[in-house]
Amino acid sequence: MSISRRFLAPVVLPADPTCSVLRDAVVDVGPDGRIAYCGAASAAPAIPDDIPRTHLSGILAPGLVNTHAHSPMTLLRGLGGDLPLMAWLQDAIWPAEARMRPQDAHAGMVLGCVEMLRYGVTTSAEMYAHAEQVVDAALLAGSRVLVAPAYFDLPGGDWRADLAAIGKWIDADGLRFGPGERVELCYGPHSAYTLPPEALQATAEEAAQRGALVHIHVAETLAEDVAQRERHGSVPQLLCTSGLLDGRLLAAHAVHLSDDDIRLFAESGTGVAHCPGSNAKLASGTASLHALRAASVAVGLGTDGPASNDDLDLWEEARLAMMFCRLTTGDPLALTAADAFLMATSGGAAALGRTDIGALRPGNWADLIHVSVDGPHFATGLDVEDGHLLANLMWAAGSRAVTDVWVAGEPVVENGETVRVDRVAAQRAAGEAAARVI
Amino acid sequence: MSISRRFLAPVVLPADPTCSVLRDAVVDVGPDGRIAYCGAASAAPAIPDDIPRTHLSGILAPGLVNTHAHSPMTLLRGLGGDLPLMAWLQDAIWPAEARMRPQDAHAGMVLGCVEMLRYGVTTSAEMYAHAEQVVDAALLAGSRVLVAPAYFDLPGGDWRADLAAIGKWIDADGLRFGPGERVELCYGPHSAYTLPPEALQATAEEAAQRGALVHIHVAETLAEDVAQRERHGSVPQLLCTSGLLDGRLLAAHAVHLSDDDIRLFAESGTGVAHCPGSNAKLASGTASLHALRAASVAVGLGTDGPASNDDLDLWEEARLAMMFCRLTTGDPLALTAADAFLMATSGGAAALGRTDIGALRPGNWADLIHVSVDGPHFATGLDVEDGHLLANLMWAAGSRAVTDVWVAGEPVVENGETVRVDRVAAQRAAGEAAARVI
Repeated sequence: MSISRRFLAPVVLPADPTCSVLRDAVVDVGPDGRIAYCGAASAAPAIPDDIPRTHLSGILAPGLVNTHAHSPMTLLRGLGGDLPLMAWLQDAIWPAEARMRPQDAHAGMVLGCVEMLRYGVTTSAEMYAHAEQVVDAALLAGSRVLVAPAYFDLPGGDWRADLAAIGKWIDADGLRFGPGERVELCYGPHSAYTLPPEALQATAEEAAQRGALVHIHVAETLAEDVAQRERHGSVPQLLCTSGLLDGRLLAAHAVHLSDDDIRLFAESGTGVAHCPGSNAKLASGTASLHALRAASVAVGLGTDGPASNDDLDLWEEARLAMMFCRLTTGDPLALTAADAFLMATSGGAAALGRTDIGALRPGNWADLIHVSVDGPHFATGLDVEDGHLLANLMWAAGSRAVTDVWVAGEPVVENGETVRVDRVAAQRAAGEAAARVI
Repeated sequence: MSISRRFLAPVVLPADPTCSVLRDAVVDVGPDGRIAYCGAASAAPAIPDDIPRTHLSGILAPGLVNTHAHSPMTLLRGLGGDLPLMAWLQDAIWPAEARMRPQDAHAGMVLGCVEMLRYGVTTSAEMYAHAEQVVDAALLAGSRVLVAPAYFDLPGGDWRADLAAIGKWIDADGLRFGPGERVELCYGPHSAYTLPPEALQATAEEAAQRGALVHIHVAETLAEDVAQRERHGSVPQLLCTSGLLDGRLLAAHAVHLSDDDIRLFAESGTGVAHCPGSNAKLASGTASLHALRAASVAVGLGTDGPASNDDLDLWEEARLAMMFCRLTTGDPLALTAADAFLMATSGGAAALGRTDIGALRPGNWADLIHVSVDGPHFATGLDVEDGHLLANLMWAAGSRAVTDVWVAGEPVVENGETVRVDRVAAQRAAGEAAARVI
């Protein structure tokens, strides 16, 4: 197998199921942008001398996977900061989104990618309008995205046309495309409360035909949960009768689930995007992470949109997941640092139904991050026990320590700054777009 | 009044009770390190041309006040990361602390100060052994500290001697000393469960004589709460009968309080250090912040020690306070960004019984931070509504955006790096100390 670059690091975290901590290890990347080898340096294959080596001083890990985002909403970050939920949506967010032009969404998404990449978040599952601009922006910045064009049954909307358009797009460009297969197209039915059951059924049929992921909001608020239980048993029950549990499904939020709902998700292999920060900020509640994990549901972490978070820092979601899970169970071991690291990486990939990202193993895409140990959070160094090192990484270092990022083996962040797009120009463009929109 | 420097900024947050957002404003600092003027540039007094001006491009605000910390525990950050609470204390933390020499605590405290100052935390209320080293380290780094030497009734300990030593120290050096009055000495009875009632009574008498603050852990865990309720009614009741509510008291954690306990604290002017991150990480519970605030108890934020947090980022505690308060009340407005900003600044000062820090008003110490707006979090700029700006500051920017910090008018952080101590050297010294201790 040919190799185009060898990475050497004192610590590599492959994000395998046992959360191994490899010391003095190597990751080889092929010219196809995929991992050729990940393991001990002592067992690494011999490679020619002229293959470039990158010697890292910190921790090499897979890029983080954000399983639920509306990243163009960087334009709306902080808008209506002190309004209650419905007034926030109706008086601030929706009117601003109605004024958002395609080029505005593009500027917002570029900035979202810049922010995520600098934090080491290499993949995001996006649900938004202006899906073509979302794709273009991600390709520009070098991010990996699963893009679900959102559709609703609201005045002015036409869910049938939107649904048909996604199918046409997939049929034209393929389910995955772009350099390093950076883009995957998905279906984005907004939610059970904004669409009729027939839209969910039609989505299930169309998506299953194409093997596409369906990304949908599920039981985010108590009001939604109560209303849907009266009508359909529960949101997961409705998804089941609509046929959506027969395919690839990603349920965002999933705050209000019964044991039966969780069982439905577990049996169907439905993935859950756990968004503790957004759910707390909006006082929606907290998903039963412990019960979901006990039932072996694939759970990843999501930031939700930056207008309800208000950033795209998935490391913070990992800390929140640990804290909320410990508080709700009363057990300080309910979610360890290793558990949280896996949720943010391989767990996120599993929730998206992806096996080619989120972990460092041969054949996977080389989506890599380097975490610097030059900071107070790692003053005790890397020569500590594995649990100690993972605690320092997840509780103290996090996004602030990420210095370099690669997607499909290509550099996208160097020394903390994006290399494909200029951060300052991206901020300026987003600021100008926001000024029009707000 | 003479002035040694004028700061000019597009936004100044004085942290007054209404959380004013001053546009195009000025802060004048006198040669004594105190604020001479804070207000609109248009109303600022004329000053001679040769007074240096510092033109800032972002937000000027008071330094944050950390009301409960054991900062030398930077040496133990991440240690025993996956152990349950009592095993963590007994098998990891306490043995390590027993091995800690004075110079180790000094190295840990220097690193803690470096971390806090870079995050814009200018004041911390410390409770730890090795109090002289804690003071020396803070003076070295330029931090402001309230230092409570901790004492326990444990084998090998002698609370009577420790208590007497604090009195002697205050009598020798004064309650506050150091350049810019950076140091305040306090009493640090560890808790009701590690000391007999007579130790609390003696503390109350000694502290009241000297007007000193008493810093104590209160009802952090359910087990502690249950045990003390059986014996003494409740921890606050015991503090009351011990005479501690007659003086200046700072109650750290205060997770398990009844309505009567809260009333006792409100009536006595007791301050509370709310530590949401540590309490969640250790699964101890969450203080009733909403009830405490409704009763007009002075509540500040605390990180607790960096071994149970695991960092000294008070901005994160502010976000956690908002999230937990919103989740427990079901009200997304239960704690706004403005509320959280005030808790982190003037609220913290009030909890410590201090009126000379935590807000920018004439006569107060010029403990200042500059928050940069060069980042994705502020792409929409400063020309937004006040609530929008505060949301961006508290939810998205936080510690990562602090670039410059002054304590008593003197620079301690410039361009993100400490100026009085070398960060890399501090990390190395702490790492060497940790290697001995762990």
